[in-house]
Amino acid sequence: MCPAMHDVHAFLSNWMRSLDMAVAVDAIGNLHGVYPGRKQNSERRLLIGSHLDTVPNAGAFDGVVGVVLGIALVQALDAERLPFAIEIIGFSEEEGVRFNTPFLGSRGLIGRVDDNLLGRTDEMGITISDAIREFGLDPSVSRKALLPSGAFAYLEFHIEQGPILEHLGQPLGVVKTIAGQSRYSITFIGAANHAGTTPMSLRRDALAGAAEWITMVEAEANSIANLVATVGSIKSEPRAGNVIPGFVAATLDLRHAEDEIRRNMASELLDEADQIAGRRKLGFCAESCLDQSAVGMDSALVYALQRAALKAGCDAPLMTSGAGHDAMIMAEKIPSVMMFIRSPGGISHHADESVLVGDVELAVSAGMHFLKELATE
Amino acid sequence: MCPAMHDVHAFLSNWMRSLDMAVAVDAIGNLHGVYPGRKQNSERRLLIGSHLDTVPNAGAFDGVVGVVLGIALVQALDAERLPFAIEIIGFSEEEGVRFNTPFLGSRGLIGRVDDNLLGRTDEMGITISDAIREFGLDPSVSRKALLPSGAFAYLEFHIEQGPILEHLGQPLGVVKTIAGQSRYSITFIGAANHAGTTPMSLRRDALAGAAEWITMVEAEANSIANLVATVGSIKSEPRAGNVIPGFVAATLDLRHAEDEIRRNMASELLDEADQIAGRRKLGFCAESCLDQSAVGMDSALVYALQRAALKAGCDAPLMTSGAGHDAMIMAEKIPSVMMFIRSPGGISHHADESVLVGDVELAVSAGMHFLKELATE
Repeated sequence: MCPAMHDVHAFLSNWMRSLDMAVAVDAIGNLHGVYPGRKQNSERRLLIGSHLDTVPNAGAFDGVVGVVLGIALVQALDAERLPFAIEIIGFSEEEGVRFNTPFLGSRGLIGRVDDNLLGRTDEMGITISDAIREFGLDPSVSRKALLPSGAFAYLEFHIEQGPILEHLGQPLGVVKTIAGQSRYSITFIGAANHAGTTPMSLRRDALAGAAEWITMVEAEANSIANLVATVGSIKSEPRAGNVIPGFVAATLDLRHAEDEIRRNMASELLDEADQIAGRRKLGFCAESCLDQSAVGMDSALVYALQRAALKAGCDAPLMTSGAGHDAMIMAEKIPSVMMFIRSPGGISHHADESVLVGDVELAVSAGMHFLKELATE
Repeated sequence: MCPAMHDVHAFLSNWMRSLDMAVAVDAIGNLHGVYPGRKQNSERRLLIGSHLDTVPNAGAFDGVVGVVLGIALVQALDAERLPFAIEIIGFSEEEGVRFNTPFLGSRGLIGRVDDNLLGRTDEMGITISDAIREFGLDPSVSRKALLPSGAFAYLEFHIEQGPILEHLGQPLGVVKTIAGQSRYSITFIGAANHAGTTPMSLRRDALAGAAEWITMVEAEANSIANLVATVGSIKSEPRAGNVIPGFVAATLDLRHAEDEIRRNMASELLDEADQIAGRRKLGFCAESCLDQSAVGMDSALVYALQRAALKAGCDAPLMTSGAGHDAMIMAEKIPSVMMFIRSPGGISHHADESVLVGDVELAVSAGMHFLKELATE
């Protein structure tokens, strides 16, 4: 973990201490700040968090804005005590850039870190264990669940990272479901041959087959509401302008809030690829790389957050998150909910990533109404 | 020029000298062997040649089989003298592998080598001039045309390097035209974005656009007899499975015996790409890399060679060569013709490249009938 992350921890820690919060870093590198409730010995605790890391060359809002918003809410309480404590969590390693596996911090918090995970290495061959030790922590502790026993809900603010709220003209949205994902590696195998001497009728062109299929993937995805299908990467061989491609490797990424719709679409698209390959005398093979089920947010919290937004003056739509988030991990253990903040231009993971100041003010206001509703329960 | 080429020159030179031929290497590295005609001082000369180089990891027949067949014809004459001399030419650097420009030997022979060409460098920075000097030759001479003044025809035997003759069940074919070629670099520019959070309707997917166009290229090519169109290379960015491709670079290679058909098809395919891009809000641009006109073989020689094949027992079809050959260069200066020999499996530029012994025997027999017809004119 890098000096920049140490600086972020220092800045947020000082801010939280100034609000009378108890600050600590856990064994997986998550930053915690606890704002006590009205009764000092009550165990009831609302968790508010998001991640502090992001991807290389990214902007200033993905993840960290959710942590900052949580602390801003505590500040907005202006020393008022609620019937429960508030614990702010700044998760480590959500993106999974360094170790090519995401959600390290939230997985640690719910006890999903094992020796297998701790042994994963970065590009320099440094294991997660080593990195934790280097940060000054004890990796052996990270295998134990760190979730406070009185935690009754998890709230995450996050930028949308997509264009839907902007398209709808809405500053805020409430996430109802985090979409499930299927990912496949696809290969079409034909015969590389001379582009000048091989008649069209005698070709086994792997790229022409892949192109037909990619066109079909897009058309099929368009036919199902809210399904997204992406061929993100394609590679042909031998990659000479005057040689018919004999080999194509591509990826397929499919997402939907309903697992059955997603899985049916996946098998339909693979069937169609198989048929295209058969008709063209190509080899075809598909390898499943990920089959992550959709994760529902807690209904009571979802409607409470939507009501809170309405009180703040915002008719926040219910949304499916196409991206994974720490809330997806947390939902396994405690009732969870997310609020999305409009992303101007739908831009994220890019230096141009931003938020509108007014949208953030609305999110703080909605958050305060949400805290008050929880406090009266 | 490498030790292997020196060995080939030595082997063929010894064989030609044993047939009473005068052997020389010209300033661009072509090997020549002259078998005198009946009148020692007659200038009339039939050229028979092909190239001695090939591509890396290729087979044993591309090019060199045409030189060997020429010498075999002289041997088959069994010391008989014709009313004209026969000059065998083993061309250098037809493929253009080392200097990334083809037909060096034949271009040299017809006087198409200039200082610009001689200054081209290989991957090590060695110029063509340097390479000629290193081979023991004088590059200054290579700028002058070396074509013997009495040359009245050029004959080239070559493996087909495609599947047509095998498909027709014919051992030999006679080339009527060498197809013209158009080559383009194509780019589609969209917007890279998150594969999970960007709805299908709000995407600008450069790969989906390219795929639609590639499918159309194939369909349009299928609609015109004997036209071939190939998207041989494709590259997408940023090449991550979970990111919508924002950029695609591809190639287009188009070939046909009639230049008007080829050029019309090229502009139609570029128009369609432009329309696809417009509909999808993508940027599109196409850069022309090559516009090589079709080259006709000499009609009288074409029909003479076809009659000669028939006398040898083979109903050789007239063909278009989709690949370029030294005959395409030679045709600019003297009447030229090519005979294709069936390529088993259509395989070429590969270690599995081969010919059938019986097909080569038929080619020698057809060649002898061709020589006799020329001798009686």
